[in-house]
Amino acid sequence: MKISTDQISALNKKQEDSYNSELDFLRNKFAKRGIEVDEIIHKVADFQVAIPSWALGAGGTRFGRFSFGGEPASLEQKLDDIGVLHALTKTAGAVSLHIPWDIPSDVKAIKEVAKSHGISFDAMNSNTFQDQPNAKETYKFGSLSNTNAASRDYAIQHNKDVINIGKELGSKSLTVWLADGANFPGQNNFQTALNHTENSLKSIYKTMPEDWKMFIEYKPYEPNFYSTVIQDWGTSFMLSNACGERAYTLVDLGHHLPNTNIEQIVATLMLKGKLGGFHFNDSKYGDDDVTVGSIKPYALFLIFNELVYGMKNNPQNPDLSWMIDASHNTKDPLEDLLQSLEAILIAYTQALLVDQKALKNAQQENDVVKCQEILQDAYRTDVRPVLKAAREKSGAAVDPLQAYRQFGVRKDLIKERGTKTMATGL
Amino acid sequence: MKISTDQISALNKKQEDSYNSELDFLRNKFAKRGIEVDEIIHKVADFQVAIPSWALGAGGTRFGRFSFGGEPASLEQKLDDIGVLHALTKTAGAVSLHIPWDIPSDVKAIKEVAKSHGISFDAMNSNTFQDQPNAKETYKFGSLSNTNAASRDYAIQHNKDVINIGKELGSKSLTVWLADGANFPGQNNFQTALNHTENSLKSIYKTMPEDWKMFIEYKPYEPNFYSTVIQDWGTSFMLSNACGERAYTLVDLGHHLPNTNIEQIVATLMLKGKLGGFHFNDSKYGDDDVTVGSIKPYALFLIFNELVYGMKNNPQNPDLSWMIDASHNTKDPLEDLLQSLEAILIAYTQALLVDQKALKNAQQENDVVKCQEILQDAYRTDVRPVLKAAREKSGAAVDPLQAYRQFGVRKDLIKERGTKTMATGL
Amino acid sequence: MKISTDQISALNKKQEDSYNSELDFLRNKFAKRGIEVDEIIHKVADFQVAIPSWALGAGGTRFGRFSFGGEPASLEQKLDDIGVLHALTKTAGAVSLHIPWDIPSDVKAIKEVAKSHGISFDAMNSNTFQDQPNAKETYKFGSLSNTNAASRDYAIQHNKDVINIGKELGSKSLTVWLADGANFPGQNNFQTALNHTENSLKSIYKTMPEDWKMFIEYKPYEPNFYSTVIQDWGTSFMLSNACGERAYTLVDLGHHLPNTNIEQIVATLMLKGKLGGFHFNDSKYGDDDVTVGSIKPYALFLIFNELVYGMKNNPQNPDLSWMIDASHNTKDPLEDLLQSLEAILIAYTQALLVDQKALKNAQQENDVVKCQEILQDAYRTDVRPVLKAAREKSGAAVDPLQAYRQFGVRKDLIKERGTKTMATGL
Amino acid sequence: MKISTDQISALNKKQEDSYNSELDFLRNKFAKRGIEVDEIIHKVADFQVAIPSWALGAGGTRFGRFSFGGEPASLEQKLDDIGVLHALTKTAGAVSLHIPWDIPSDVKAIKEVAKSHGISFDAMNSNTFQDQPNAKETYKFGSLSNTNAASRDYAIQHNKDVINIGKELGSKSLTVWLADGANFPGQNNFQTALNHTENSLKSIYKTMPEDWKMFIEYKPYEPNFYSTVIQDWGTSFMLSNACGERAYTLVDLGHHLPNTNIEQIVATLMLKGKLGGFHFNDSKYGDDDVTVGSIKPYALFLIFNELVYGMKNNPQNPDLSWMIDASHNTKDPLEDLLQSLEAILIAYTQALLVDQKALKNAQQENDVVKCQEILQDAYRTDVRPVLKAAREKSGAAVDPLQAYRQFGVRKDLIKERGTKTMATGL
Repeated sequence: MKISTDQISALNKKQEDSYNSELDFLRNKFAKRGIEVDEIIHKVADFQVAIPSWALGAGGTRFGRFSFGGEPASLEQKLDDIGVLHALTKTAGAVSLHIPWDIPSDVKAIKEVAKSHGISFDAMNSNTFQDQPNAKETYKFGSLSNTNAASRDYAIQHNKDVINIGKELGSKSLTVWLADGANFPGQNNFQTALNHTENSLKSIYKTMPEDWKMFIEYKPYEPNFYSTVIQDWGTSFMLSNACGERAYTLVDLGHHLPNTNIEQIVATLMLKGKLGGFHFNDSKYGDDDVTVGSIKPYALFLIFNELVYGMKNNPQNPDLSWMIDASHNTKDPLEDLLQSLEAILIAYTQALLVDQKALKNAQQENDVVKCQEILQDAYRTDVRPVLKAAREKSGAAVDPLQAYRQFGVRKDLIKERGTKTMATGL
Repeated sequence: MKISTDQISALNKKQEDSYNSELDFLRNKFAKRGIEVDEIIHKVADFQVAIPSWALGAGGTRFGRFSFGGEPASLEQKLDDIGVLHALTKTAGAVSLHIPWDIPSDVKAIKEVAKSHGISFDAMNSNTFQDQPNAKETYKFGSLSNTNAASRDYAIQHNKDVINIGKELGSKSLTVWLADGANFPGQNNFQTALNHTENSLKSIYKTMPEDWKMFIEYKPYEPNFYSTVIQDWGTSFMLSNACGERAYTLVDLGHHLPNTNIEQIVATLMLKGKLGGFHFNDSKYGDDDVTVGSIKPYALFLIFNELVYGMKNNPQNPDLSWMIDASHNTKDPLEDLLQSLEAILIAYTQALLVDQKALKNAQQENDVVKCQEILQDAYRTDVRPVLKAAREKSGAAVDPLQAYRQFGVRKDLIKERGTKTMATGL
Repeated sequence: MKISTDQISALNKKQEDSYNSELDFLRNKFAKRGIEVDEIIHKVADFQVAIPSWALGAGGTRFGRFSFGGEPASLEQKLDDIGVLHALTKTAGAVSLHIPWDIPSDVKAIKEVAKSHGISFDAMNSNTFQDQPNAKETYKFGSLSNTNAASRDYAIQHNKDVINIGKELGSKSLTVWLADGANFPGQNNFQTALNHTENSLKSIYKTMPEDWKMFIEYKPYEPNFYSTVIQDWGTSFMLSNACGERAYTLVDLGHHLPNTNIEQIVATLMLKGKLGGFHFNDSKYGDDDVTVGSIKPYALFLIFNELVYGMKNNPQNPDLSWMIDASHNTKDPLEDLLQSLEAILIAYTQALLVDQKALKNAQQENDVVKCQEILQDAYRTDVRPVLKAAREKSGAAVDPLQAYRQFGVRKDLIKERGTKTMATGL
Repeated sequence: MKISTDQISALNKKQEDSYNSELDFLRNKFAKRGIEVDEIIHKVADFQVAIPSWALGAGGTRFGRFSFGGEPASLEQKLDDIGVLHALTKTAGAVSLHIPWDIPSDVKAIKEVAKSHGISFDAMNSNTFQDQPNAKETYKFGSLSNTNAASRDYAIQHNKDVINIGKELGSKSLTVWLADGANFPGQNNFQTALNHTENSLKSIYKTMPEDWKMFIEYKPYEPNFYSTVIQDWGTSFMLSNACGERAYTLVDLGHHLPNTNIEQIVATLMLKGKLGGFHFNDSKYGDDDVTVGSIKPYALFLIFNELVYGMKNNPQNPDLSWMIDASHNTKDPLEDLLQSLEAILIAYTQALLVDQKALKNAQQENDVVKCQEILQDAYRTDVRPVLKAAREKSGAAVDPLQAYRQFGVRKDLIKERGTKTMATGL
């Protein structure tokens, strides 16, 4: 299954509703404030989000999983799926692999497949939250924080192995998400667990190539239901500082307690030069991992407002690794990812439309009403014409979801792969 | 694996620390207020909690499952496990089955096994949240609320089948837990889904034998992450009223939004004669399903305070079906259940110690400080001697967990069943 | 301070950016789906939201209050302020009074003032959460639920007095918000408190004129921090049913536990014909009472989606009483209310744009992706041209906030009233 | 109003129920594990908690306040009230003052009054969340973080003034609680606000005497409802590190998002030597500020378990400043404080009973069940005899609340001060 440039440009031509008059309107409106829509189109066209290899199959909950036909059964097929997404959007030009689910048997061949789709290798993900068949040590009671040195060493070695695989593929970063924690009060000594974790991370950090970065993820709960060793950004930030300059915090939108002001965390980390990666999804209750922007799109915009601000004003912070980290329990995974990519670009575009100069003035004068008006004006703007223009410019489909359906992608995938394949993942 | 009465009484005799002097102290202290500890011992000895058949294996999360040796591989073995719990505690004299996980191949034989352990058949549980292999209809988009009539009918018929199996076994009630809901705004028409659910429940209700009760469970989220058709007690209560006199609400402790005052819900339902069943577990974040009393024991006590009050003052409410509904991700399931039973009896005993007369007076006088003192006095009392006395009286082990370890139960189970069996469940 | 029609139309003419080309675009786009934008303009122009008399002064928290100049010091001045809002928007044509804060000394004169502004008298609000100077009974430990009959009677009589004042003014409904509850476990007997409340409400209900409605508000916590007698919609619904046909539940957006699915509650109540009133505000943490739409605009849209659906499909439900219930701690109250009115109309318009036929089909086919697309398409539309058209049509300012600032309203109010007046309220 | 030692010892003698047999039982039980109850009695007798000067009057909410007779109208009277608490408990031997509410007119005289009650001066509290009459600058839009330099300077100077008052009185620490934040998205530039705050704090820090400590409090929301500059421990920790060695984080139990694992924060801060102060209260929903231990006593125990562990194992962490920070909306403030002191000592005692050696072993072996048993065994112990012994030992009333009522303290205070005095506070 591969979608050609010709197919897409043919489809784009048939696109009935032209977006050009709307776009002109936006151009004029924002030009008056010194905001150039064409520059924004350029930025939007450049924006790339990594797709994790585990997001291409049906997700599930502890209560079960409803399968979906045509799931990719191999790393090659996963790359093909991302290739479809990238062809349709020109925004999905990277993959984030998960080891051991995605150990390439033939590195060179895999790199070829990726290259043919225009896909690069973003952050590598290690897995120390599940025991693999024939594992010599168990992570049942923790990995990098385990009271048992053998389990810690086993988990450290796994992370080093992941780095090595990543080096071969051309990745430049490692994301460490630790499920370590406790289900019951008393189970862990918090201080011991934290010390073990710090030492384990330092040991992994030291073996990273000099051009690599480490991203330390945090999460308050699940799969542990009493405590998690790296429970919040403060803990991750402390550990990043302990590890060194190239260790950063990674923010996953779903990894927060109810009502957390995530955009403030983003702003703080960028100010301190310590925001390294970002995982997109959305949620109403916990780490629900539903489609980006499907529940709280304004919160997403506010977060992007800080990201855009930081990217412009915080040279101390590195370029960010963007990734979608969602679960597709009741949707076709590829359609879900297309909806997520759309929501990300909408929020990004709206954030780029914020009149930063006017905002700064209003903030300085404590004109709270005006501050709100400025943000809402950007947010209430229908920016879909900008996305369409950006996509047409970069050779993507003007309306990727419509194109996906029109091309009958899922039907073809089922024909190719059958209805019973099951992708590795959660 | 079966533990004999002799083994237990022999062990009880060896029990080093006598609890009798403590018990006498409690007897005297509370007698002054007209509270007879011996009556309480009697009530505690009588209290029976059903064990669900799916709680005897290791639980898990969507991130995985760490197996545990000696898990029961058949319904007989599950009953044997409950038999162990009941022998040790004399509190676990009932089982709650889950269909299709526990369809008995030989009803008579199963009833014999249960009888030999002194176990009765409590509420039957249907499963319309998972598709079984070769299922003719799918529940992916709902069961009793599905927009598709064929799926609704399939789910209705399944519930009727469950009733029929229950009738043969001697059960007298059906618990309906619906996962139905939506992951995304717009997916469901709330009103249609509610109407379908009401009609489906009525259809099931009508086929119940006249001495059966129906328990309608509610839950705000998971496995659906945007909406759940029966999201709260109000919805369940409305549906119970629509179905008829023998339909009741079932309260599961973990099925509430953060900070919900559950004890008030319990009091309201008992006042209205509509509390039918109760599922015990504990949680810090969501439906964590951890050991009863391990996180919020005071909340458990406050709930029992309302239950005890209702059992005494609300003849309009039926006897309650009690069940433990927890998941055992990192503990030996039987040890976890023993800890849960202990916590339940402690809370129950403390609630029985509340000086209701004094409380009523203090409430009438709005002496808020004294109201609190009265509850806290009961709660701060170490009631473990009462539990020990109740257990010794009924032939159970004075210290069940200690006995379980001393008898080497798990070791024997592993010897019998091996390390690779896996119980049905979540 | 009074703004004339001439002033407004003169300003509208000067409005630089015409919204007509955008409006045409919307007209064409939605006409293709059978959605007539001009009908929507008509509906939006008709929509009226009551302003509560207590929302015209600076709000505060328990930590204090920062005053604002030109606050209204009398009922007349409050009506004048609402007159300004209504002149600017033609959407604020009603006031909701709070007794005893707004007892009119001269009913006839007050009615004249209101009439001169085009303002009608919406629901009356009673206050049994504060003790007035020289009160004969105290509400410290509750009002309609008090263990003390004298306090209950006092609160019942107060509500009857409020009805009488409302009758004279032409109001047709009473809103009962009860703060009753407990700060500590044990303080209240839940069942007694609920019974007292039901009886008190029935007694008030019986004295209502036959063309009046009663709205029963619910709230989980604050000002009581352990329990609240009417804690959720289920309790309010139960009490409404007990009182009679003209008793309804009132939903205040801020009165829910974290993550509550409010739109589902709205749908359920409308299906059952029991949604009577609606209080608008927004919040991130609790009952924050901040500007409508300032935190979770998509949730507001989803709620309006259910309201619009119910208004069309649920003839069993009465017309709704709409009110803004917010607190203005750091903004000019009138500007805050203008922003709230804007956010309400935006969400209402977006909900009117939802392609209900397509949505119904997608729901029937369980095309979850398409369901989401349909809602998001409406939500992502920039509907501000529709609001502008509706306002111009009805003689309001095309851009009310801009007009408010241009007319220098606040400056004039301060000149008239000084900087030290303080409006009654929270 | 002053209670003499003789009065107390006379009352203790009349104490009907001797606690000695229970105490002996505890002594024996715990001696077997190498835990000496008499050492614990000693520690409990030594434990001192500061009473804040604002906790001696009735509290309230934004909805109002119900007054209480006999409230202290002056600093002297506040000290007298604390004197009563200290005489009854020998645990309340310190006061924490709030400026400008407690500026002493005659320092020497105030020190005499305090000395006569055995009360020392704990941390000083500044107030930059309210504007005082005739204030030259406003804190409406922030204090240490204000965009306006004049407001920042004004707030900095206020803190310096507070230090100066504290120096005269003999205090050795300053607690900074900042309400600074925003009610609406866009209102604040997060990075600017954080930078301003850091600079302001550094400026205050520099003027502190060398034997003083600074405690930086954090809070997620209220009185600001969108963002708070110091929103969590991570931000406070970062600021403490920026200020210097003698700047520490202060944990207030009520200042956390729902479900936060506070005990883990405590453990982390003590490990890093950065936990300086601790504010006790309890809550179910937000910063409810209700009586300590009245809602989640097990959480309090778990926190004390970490505190006890840290006090023993973390020499890098300084001695802690303990304070009760609660609001007394419906209780006699002194009775409420007596209940809080009791709850604190109970949790402390239970934590001291934890068998640390056994716990460490069980943790090392990942015996999760046993870890839980060890904590629960301590928690389920009725430790009130230990408190009684500790109090009798130190000359306090064995049962302080009973003594308070028996001595008719409130009646006397009303006689002395009348029913209309109103203490400064919230």
